[in-house]
Amino acid sequence: MDTESVERVLSVQSHVVYGYVGGKAAVFPLQCLGYDVDVVNTVHFSNHSGYGRSGGTKATAAELNAVFESMERNELMVPTRLLTGYVPGAEGLSAVAGLARKLRSEKPDLIYLLDPVMGDSGKLYVAADVIPIYRELLPLATIISPNWFEVETLTNVRLDSLQSLRKAISILHDTYHVPHVVISSMPLTRWLYEALPPSVRPPTDEDQLLCITSSAPSSCSPSSAASAQAQLPTVHALCVPLLPGYFSGVGDLFSALLLAHFHRAPSTCISSSISASPSPSPSAHEPPTSAGPPTSPIAHAAAHALAVTQHILRLTHEHALTLPAEQRLPSDDELDAAEPLRKIRRMRGRELRLVQGQAALRGVGVEVRPMQVWEDFWGA
Amino acid sequence: MDTESVERVLSVQSHVVYGYVGGKAAVFPLQCLGYDVDVVNTVHFSNHSGYGRSGGTKATAAELNAVFESMERNELMVPTRLLTGYVPGAEGLSAVAGLARKLRSEKPDLIYLLDPVMGDSGKLYVAADVIPIYRELLPLATIISPNWFEVETLTNVRLDSLQSLRKAISILHDTYHVPHVVISSMPLTRWLYEALPPSVRPPTDEDQLLCITSSAPSSCSPSSAASAQAQLPTVHALCVPLLPGYFSGVGDLFSALLLAHFHRAPSTCISSSISASPSPSPSAHEPPTSAGPPTSPIAHAAAHALAVTQHILRLTHEHALTLPAEQRLPSDDELDAAEPLRKIRRMRGRELRLVQGQAALRGVGVEVRPMQVWEDFWGA
Repeated sequence: MDTESVERVLSVQSHVVYGYVGGKAAVFPLQCLGYDVDVVNTVHFSNHSGYGRSGGTKATAAELNAVFESMERNELMVPTRLLTGYVPGAEGLSAVAGLARKLRSEKPDLIYLLDPVMGDSGKLYVAADVIPIYRELLPLATIISPNWFEVETLTNVRLDSLQSLRKAISILHDTYHVPHVVISSMPLTRWLYEALPPSVRPPTDEDQLLCITSSAPSSCSPSSAASAQAQLPTVHALCVPLLPGYFSGVGDLFSALLLAHFHRAPSTCISSSISASPSPSPSAHEPPTSAGPPTSPIAHAAAHALAVTQHILRLTHEHALTLPAEQRLPSDDELDAAEPLRKIRRMRGRELRLVQGQAALRGVGVEVRPMQVWEDFWGA
Repeated sequence: MDTESVERVLSVQSHVVYGYVGGKAAVFPLQCLGYDVDVVNTVHFSNHSGYGRSGGTKATAAELNAVFESMERNELMVPTRLLTGYVPGAEGLSAVAGLARKLRSEKPDLIYLLDPVMGDSGKLYVAADVIPIYRELLPLATIISPNWFEVETLTNVRLDSLQSLRKAISILHDTYHVPHVVISSMPLTRWLYEALPPSVRPPTDEDQLLCITSSAPSSCSPSSAASAQAQLPTVHALCVPLLPGYFSGVGDLFSALLLAHFHRAPSTCISSSISASPSPSPSAHEPPTSAGPPTSPIAHAAAHALAVTQHILRLTHEHALTLPAEQRLPSDDELDAAEPLRKIRRMRGRELRLVQGQAALRGVGVEVRPMQVWEDFWGA
C-alpha cells in the first residue's frame, strides 16, 4: 500500500524566513516521515518573536479564505490530517475555524491536531478574543496539544493539585469532547511529583518535565470488553529531562511529530481497558501511517514525539555550547533591552538543529521510551 | 568540520500551498542534502499556474524589502548561497536584485544561482519589463540555469545552429560575465543532434533532451598551467530521456539540486584545461559541501542534478500511470477550456513525488552519469 500518498497533512501556521518555528519546525519533519504537506502560512516574518523584533506581514482572514476557496474550487482541499498552530488574531483564527468545521463535516475520518497556541509560562501572547474561538474549535479536534498554561486558559482551572489536573482534563474530554489530550511539558512541581505513581516518578523532581496523555473512554457499547475502569479516560505519563535555556519552536516540532506518529486504530472503537497497558517500545522506523499498536495510539505517538524532540533539543543545546561567548550570553532583561543584538545573537544560536538532525527525525538512532500508564490517576 | 552548519541557502521564490513548484520544489531537497534554508516567499498561492486557475497573494516589493531589512537589522542575512527563482513583476524583482547586489558586494564568496524564470517553449509568462532587470542581475550570478527560450530572451540570439549556440553562450560569459551557464533541457533538434560529438550523441534524436554546461576560462594568469584552449569556455553535455507529458517544478528542483551539488573549488582558479576531462562518476552520497573534484564543479553538479531530477520524474510518471483514467486525460486545449477540472485533475496527478522519492534526493539508489566534455564545441 502506498502509504505516503494516501496520507496528506494540511498545515496552517506561521512562517519565518530564518529559523525554525511554526511551519518551518513542522513541515520538514512531516515530510521526512513521508507525508505530503500542504502548507498555508498565516504570517510571513523574518524571524520568530523571541528575537524581540521582526519584520514581515500577517495574512488577513480574506487572504486565507481566498486560498482555502481556491483549493476547494480546484479539488485540492484533500488532506487526511489537519494541523493548526499559531494564527495571529481572532479574524484569521475564525477563518481557520471555518475551514476546520468544513473539513470535519465533510471528512469524518479527518485527524485534526489542534495546537491552541495562546501563551506560555503564565503569559498570554495572543489577544484575549481568540480564547473563545479556540474553545469553539476544541470539539472539532482529534488531538489537542496545549501546554499547561493553555490548559488553564481553556478550562479556567488553575493547575495546582492532582484534583485540579483531573478536573481540567475532564472538562476537555467531557465538556469539549476532545478524544485525545496531550500536555507535553508540565514543570514537575512538588504536588505533581508527589502525585506520580512509582512507575513514572523520576529519582528527583529537579530539571524534569512531565508529558501527560489522556484518551477519552471509547464510544464502544457496554457490551464490549471494556471494563468499568474503561469508562474513565486512560492517562499515560513520562518524565523527560529539562534542558537549560530557552528554545523556540519546540512545541511546534512536538505537535508535528505527534500527528505524524499517531496511527489510526484498526477500528474507530478504542478500548481503554486494553490501552491501559503501556504500549511496547515501538520501532522508531515504522512508516508514519502503518497500523501501529492496536491500543493507545496517542501514548505511542507521544513516546515517539518526545524521544525525537529530546534528541533534537540535545543536538541544539550541544551546538549552542560550541558558539563564541558573545553568541550565548545569559538571558538578562535589562542588558537585553539595552542591547537588542545581545538577545538576538543568543536566539540565533539556539535555533533547532532540524536539518542536522534529520536522521533522528526519521527515527534513526532514537531510543523511544514508552509512556507509562498512570494507574490510579482518577483515584483508586 | 560541521559542513551542514556553515553552508546556508537563502531561497527567494514562489510558494504554493498544494504541490511542488518554486520553494516547495527546492527547499525540501536542499534540506535533505544538509542545507539550512532561509525561505522567502514571493507569492502565496493555492497551487501553480499550470492548473489554469489559482488563488492567493503576491508579496509587494515593500513587503519583500521589509523582510530583507529586518533580517539585516537582526544579523540574520547570513547566507553563503543565494537561490532566486520566480519573482512576479518588475517591482518585486527589483527588490530581489537590490538584495543580490548587496549580498554580492558584502560576500565575495557568495555562490549565487540565478534561475531567470521568464518563460518556456517560446512563450514569455512574465511581463516584458522584467527582462532588462534579469540582464542586470546576470553579472552578479555564479551560476545561471535558463532554459533554451530564456537564453534566447536574455541574449537576443535565436538558437537554430551550433554557431548561434556558441554566440549565445559567449554573450552570457563575455558580455554578462557569468562564470557558469547551465542550459538544463534543450530539445534535441536535428541541428543540435548533428553538432554533437560522438561521445555525447545518443543512438537517436527522438525523445531526448540535452543538458549543456559551460564554464568561463579561469582567471588564472597565463603563467599557469592553463593551455591556450583553456582560454575558451569549457563545455560539457549530456543527453537525458524526455518523459511524456508536462511536469511542473522540474526546473525549480533541478536548480536547487544544481546549487546543492556545486562544490567550491579548492582554489578560485579553475583550470579549464584540466576540467576538459569528464569528471569521474562521483558518489551521490558526498556531503553537499565537500571539496568535490578539483575540476569542473559545474559539470559535477549538473550530473548529480540531472540524475536525481530524472529519478524523481520517473517516480512521478509511474505514479501518474496508476491513477484513474479521469485523472490523466490527455491535454486538449478545447476540452480543457470547456471543463477546467479536466486539466486540474491531470495536473494534480503529476505533482512531483519529492516526499516519496526523498531517498533519491539524498542520492540513495541514484546512478550518476558524468557529463561528457564537448571537445570541439568552439571549433577544431
